Amino acid sequence: MTNFIDIAPFVVFGCAVIALIFSMYQFVSVKRKPEGTDQMIAIGAKIRKGAMAYLKRQYKTVGIFFAVMFVILLILAFTGFLTKFVPFAFLTGGFFSGLSGFIGMKIATYANTRTANGAREGLNKGLKIAFASGSVMGLTVVGLGLFDVSAWFIILKYFFKLGVDDIMAAMLTFGMGASSMALFARVGGGIFTKAADVGADLVGKVEAGIPEDDPRNPACIADNVGDNVGDVAGMGADLYESYVGSIISCGALATAAGLGFNGVLVPMLIAAIGIIASIVGTFFVSTKEGADQKALLGSLRRGTYASAILSAIGSAVLIFTLLPENSNVFWAVISGLLAGVLIGFFTEYYTSDSYKPTQKLAGSSETGSATIIIDGIALGMQSTAIPVIIIGISVIVSYFTAGGASDFASGLYGVGLSAVGMLATLGITLATDAYGPVADNAGGIAEMSGLPGEVRNRTDALDSLGNTTAATGKGFAIGSAALTALALIVSYTDKIKTLGGELNLSITNPAVLIGLFVGAMLPFLFSALTMKAVGRAAQKIVIEVRRQFKEIKGLMEGKAEADYATCVDICTKSSLKEMILPAALGIIAPIVVGLVLGVNGVVGMLAGALVSGFVLAIMMANSGGAWDNAKKFIEAGHYNGKGSENHKAAVVGDTVGDPFKDTSGPSVNILIKLLSMVSIVFASIVVAYGGMGLF
Amino acid sequence: MTNFIDIAPFVVFGCAVIALIFSMYQFVSVKRKPEGTDQMIAIGAKIRKGAMAYLKRQYKTVGIFFAVMFVILLILAFTGFLTKFVPFAFLTGGFFSGLSGFIGMKIATYANTRTANGAREGLNKGLKIAFASGSVMGLTVVGLGLFDVSAWFIILKYFFKLGVDDIMAAMLTFGMGASSMALFARVGGGIFTKAADVGADLVGKVEAGIPEDDPRNPACIADNVGDNVGDVAGMGADLYESYVGSIISCGALATAAGLGFNGVLVPMLIAAIGIIASIVGTFFVSTKEGADQKALLGSLRRGTYASAILSAIGSAVLIFTLLPENSNVFWAVISGLLAGVLIGFFTEYYTSDSYKPTQKLAGSSETGSATIIIDGIALGMQSTAIPVIIIGISVIVSYFTAGGASDFASGLYGVGLSAVGMLATLGITLATDAYGPVADNAGGIAEMSGLPGEVRNRTDALDSLGNTTAATGKGFAIGSAALTALALIVSYTDKIKTLGGELNLSITNPAVLIGLFVGAMLPFLFSALTMKAVGRAAQKIVIEVRRQFKEIKGLMEGKAEADYATCVDICTKSSLKEMILPAALGIIAPIVVGLVLGVNGVVGMLAGALVSGFVLAIMMANSGGAWDNAKKFIEAGHYNGKGSENHKAAVVGDTVGDPFKDTSGPSVNILIKLLSMVSIVFASIVVAYGGMGLF
Repeated sequence: MTNFIDIAPFVVFGCAVIALIFSMYQFVSVKRKPEGTDQMIAIGAKIRKGAMAYLKRQYKTVGIFFAVMFVILLILAFTGFLTKFVPFAFLTGGFFSGLSGFIGMKIATYANTRTANGAREGLNKGLKIAFASGSVMGLTVVGLGLFDVSAWFIILKYFFKLGVDDIMAAMLTFGMGASSMALFARVGGGIFTKAADVGADLVGKVEAGIPEDDPRNPACIADNVGDNVGDVAGMGADLYESYVGSIISCGALATAAGLGFNGVLVPMLIAAIGIIASIVGTFFVSTKEGADQKALLGSLRRGTYASAILSAIGSAVLIFTLLPENSNVFWAVISGLLAGVLIGFFTEYYTSDSYKPTQKLAGSSETGSATIIIDGIALGMQSTAIPVIIIGISVIVSYFTAGGASDFASGLYGVGLSAVGMLATLGITLATDAYGPVADNAGGIAEMSGLPGEVRNRTDALDSLGNTTAATGKGFAIGSAALTALALIVSYTDKIKTLGGELNLSITNPAVLIGLFVGAMLPFLFSALTMKAVGRAAQKIVIEVRRQFKEIKGLMEGKAEADYATCVDICTKSSLKEMILPAALGIIAPIVVGLVLGVNGVVGMLAGALVSGFVLAIMMANSGGAWDNAKKFIEAGHYNGKGSENHKAAVVGDTVGDPFKDTSGPSVNILIKLLSMVSIVFASIVVAYGGMGLF
Repeated sequence: MTNFIDIAPFVVFGCAVIALIFSMYQFVSVKRKPEGTDQMIAIGAKIRKGAMAYLKRQYKTVGIFFAVMFVILLILAFTGFLTKFVPFAFLTGGFFSGLSGFIGMKIATYANTRTANGAREGLNKGLKIAFASGSVMGLTVVGLGLFDVSAWFIILKYFFKLGVDDIMAAMLTFGMGASSMALFARVGGGIFTKAADVGADLVGKVEAGIPEDDPRNPACIADNVGDNVGDVAGMGADLYESYVGSIISCGALATAAGLGFNGVLVPMLIAAIGIIASIVGTFFVSTKEGADQKALLGSLRRGTYASAILSAIGSAVLIFTLLPENSNVFWAVISGLLAGVLIGFFTEYYTSDSYKPTQKLAGSSETGSATIIIDGIALGMQSTAIPVIIIGISVIVSYFTAGGASDFASGLYGVGLSAVGMLATLGITLATDAYGPVADNAGGIAEMSGLPGEVRNRTDALDSLGNTTAATGKGFAIGSAALTALALIVSYTDKIKTLGGELNLSITNPAVLIGLFVGAMLPFLFSALTMKAVGRAAQKIVIEVRRQFKEIKGLMEGKAEADYATCVDICTKSSLKEMILPAALGIIAPIVVGLVLGVNGVVGMLAGALVSGFVLAIMMANSGGAWDNAKKFIEAGHYNGKGSENHKAAVVGDTVGDPFKDTSGPSVNILIKLLSMVSIVFASIVVAYGGMGLF
């Protein structure tokens, strides 16, 4: 087997390249599809232009941050606090995380018009284009992720001849770069999309009484740009980070458990198997012409499940071959995979209008907006119980099957593997997730271009299907964030040990306790900052849209064109300004807590942020999702239908849910990992100077 | 000094009796005041009757629970798992906690009409009656609390000749009884009051367009009954539990630190000093006739601050005499006192309409109810940061001044003392808090009896003053809950050690980690259950009120009387039914977690619930308080004033905030302590059978 081990990193690298080639092929074939009418082409171009303009400026802003951090890390490397690879690893992590979002958005902005055009011919045609663009995103994220991990691994091992411990240490910095970029992208994009959405709705739907995506609404292009920069580019960077984070944190745990190169390679190889399984899975997604929505959903599910089964079989073979003495860790991989599926199912249960909770929530609209808000928050809070139990069981299974009862470190390696197992088939789960915003955009374009109602109905069906599959995607994102953050905390303690820091992680240690308090508070503070940012940015849009309605003569009659670009510009400026503070919180908090409370305080903070952030993120995602679908349920004709008092109440719920589910909730997922990454990178400083002489 | 130590328990007992006598004197003097017009007397009687009927049935329901628990504890005592005092201590704790609420409510239901009547003559007259009734409540709670603690101490020490360790062990069960009762009272009363409030508002104000407290509204008596059973009886039981909990948990920490009788007596004596200081403080509360609201607030503050200073001086003398080698713990007491004041100040800052945050929140009403909800939630989330930092600093100061650097247990004793310091002057802080609901009720009675508008204006001024002082009270309640729960967690670990259980409390221990996850989730699940309960109960009221408006001829014209009793009855029945599940969660969770994850998992759960519950409770309290006052700010004429679209949006915020601030938020405070108490009582079972053989 030594032969295989020697070539394994290159096999992994090869699989990454295959993913990238396959996604490029899909990219080209989507781009070749016809874009539709002239009007559709024009609108599509506007959205693309706005989205690209945003991204360029976002990268500039983030570039400054990366430059500053790079210099700081360089200084720390020169003064001996960090190894020399760290600053460069940090940069590449950020670069590729941003690139994932960029490519995903590029294809999404090509696919939106083409999906709308496809939907003119039929539901299935629309689905295929949208799903193909989703799979470009999915395979780009996993392809780039594994490309970078394996490339770094190969460079450090074969060129610099580093030992496995040093390799993993350098690679964790790579993760910090990816997390930082992801946080900026998620927060900035999340603020953009929701500010535009809320702003457009408040003036357009509520005040002017025109439908969503009506071309008379000056914010409608900004709204559609937002879907791309937030839901696509933000999500791409986010999941790139989760994916890479789970692989490298698991690798770091392997070194802690003394499992050497084999242990480090296993997560990479599982990811490689997952990529191949995902590509195979995409071929299962296709239906006969004239299929109904249920059949479409079945087709998407078939793809996901096929990939999962293939991935499980491949992982089994791999583990039994590479880790014969530890072959039980196979169950860790399976438990992660299952936990992801189950959390996804319960996310769907709580947020889809096919099930009781959301239907009942729609019923709360009978007594007005206050009761639908109360019940929606309660629903979100209640929905946190099952995922916590699932994660708990998954940790128990993976810890003990990996031999935790006799060896602590091996058990934790099992937990790391379960996170990798959960994300192994990200290529396809992300595809089913990323296709949602494309369908959403296609609907907007259909509306704005005045396509017949049946086209809009078809894109709505695709969109609603997207909401269901997105629920599964969210399950994986949230679950893997928890497990990855957990693995990173353990990596941190391991790092402290190698640095010679003194650990007393007992919960009764005051430093740990205070750290727990601070950590539990951080996701709340962070969410508050992001929500307020959305509010402020939306306010600016409201004022601008009102101004345009007042000053542009003939706009409401459809005789004059709105000034879309100004709205896009306002969203861009304010979201870039507003993303700084929350992102800074994620980077500064671990350093300040470290300096004040020392290393044990940092661990407390990480654990506190992990558990409270996990619960808060689920609550916000599910409350928001349920409100959204409760509104759709009413629009479908229940509880007096569209335009009724019930509907108005549900719109309030949906508006409150917007920043919950698309800005604050998903950003908290990144925050909990970024906190760990930053702690790891700055560990040597904290060990040397932290604790104020008290702790 | 040995002489003083011998008589000290009796001195403490004597101070408790003084408090009770003083409060009885106040009780009688309030009762002697005239009640006003016949109509006022009739309405007052109805409220009193409804409130008493509720309490009686609540005690019956809770009685069944206590009987069952008593039998279980008795069996455990007979089988050797618990000492024989435990079942009886449990019963008395519950009994006295309930009694505190009962007496507080009794006086509140006498004082409400008398306050309204006093307000007919002038603001100051009304204040005096309301404050006197508040001080009955305050001194009853602290009097009964210290009475019980010292009586048990005396009985166990002098009659049963127990050692100090056994005494404290028995007394912790006493705390579990008090916590259980408090949870039932808070949850049941909280559901009652908010169901009636929300139900009355939704149909009365929104649908029928009649003012709050209009006698034509069939739910108006239920609404006023709710203020008494929730805000008064519930709060009484709640703070009784906090007060007693802080004293006995600190005593338990003293035994852990090997400080013997002196160490145990110090918290009791500090409490005794606080009682005397509180009584003296009440005499500082009085103003000249014709004083404005600012002067009234100044007068209340003078009382509180005078008590705090007196209490600090007394504690200094005490500690320097009794613990000369540990005299630095004085700073722990001071840090607790200061932390309480500071948290109270920031609670006020975030929720009072004299400050920016709430004024800005009122401004969000410009763009409708969705934005005021988003901003209110963000405000609540943001407001968690400062209290966390204050608690953190307070823990650091009290831990290290008490000698934590060299001796872990002594440091934790300091933390316990800071909780006692924070609650020492509860007698007066609770008085300023409890007078609020009385003023609120007085306003209702003024409205229902058709008293002139100026009387209502005066009671409104008193009410609004009450909101401000209540903020300070809440600061103490939340802060002390955190410190007390913290002390209880440490007591739990100590108990496990004496039982011979194996502790590995490292955060990286999977049992601890999973426990943290489960613990962090519990306050969310608990809040969801209580919020949904409010929703369901309110729904029933809505249906009933609608029915009465439809079926009782002449009701809207004021010619027929509404059937108030049925609304009270519905609230009673549904709140008693709905309180079972959340309360059961608090008792069952620690046992289940203990059996599955073992003792380390329990500690993780307790810590997780503490930190996430603390943050969540602050968020809910402050969001709710800010919405309430933003509405009042608009009603005072800002942002287009009463009846405007802004006002409607603010009413939605206020309605959402109701269960946040008066049901779920305060109940979470009790939950985090009850979880610890239950864990301690069932520790021996968990040590023997917990962990599934894995942990």
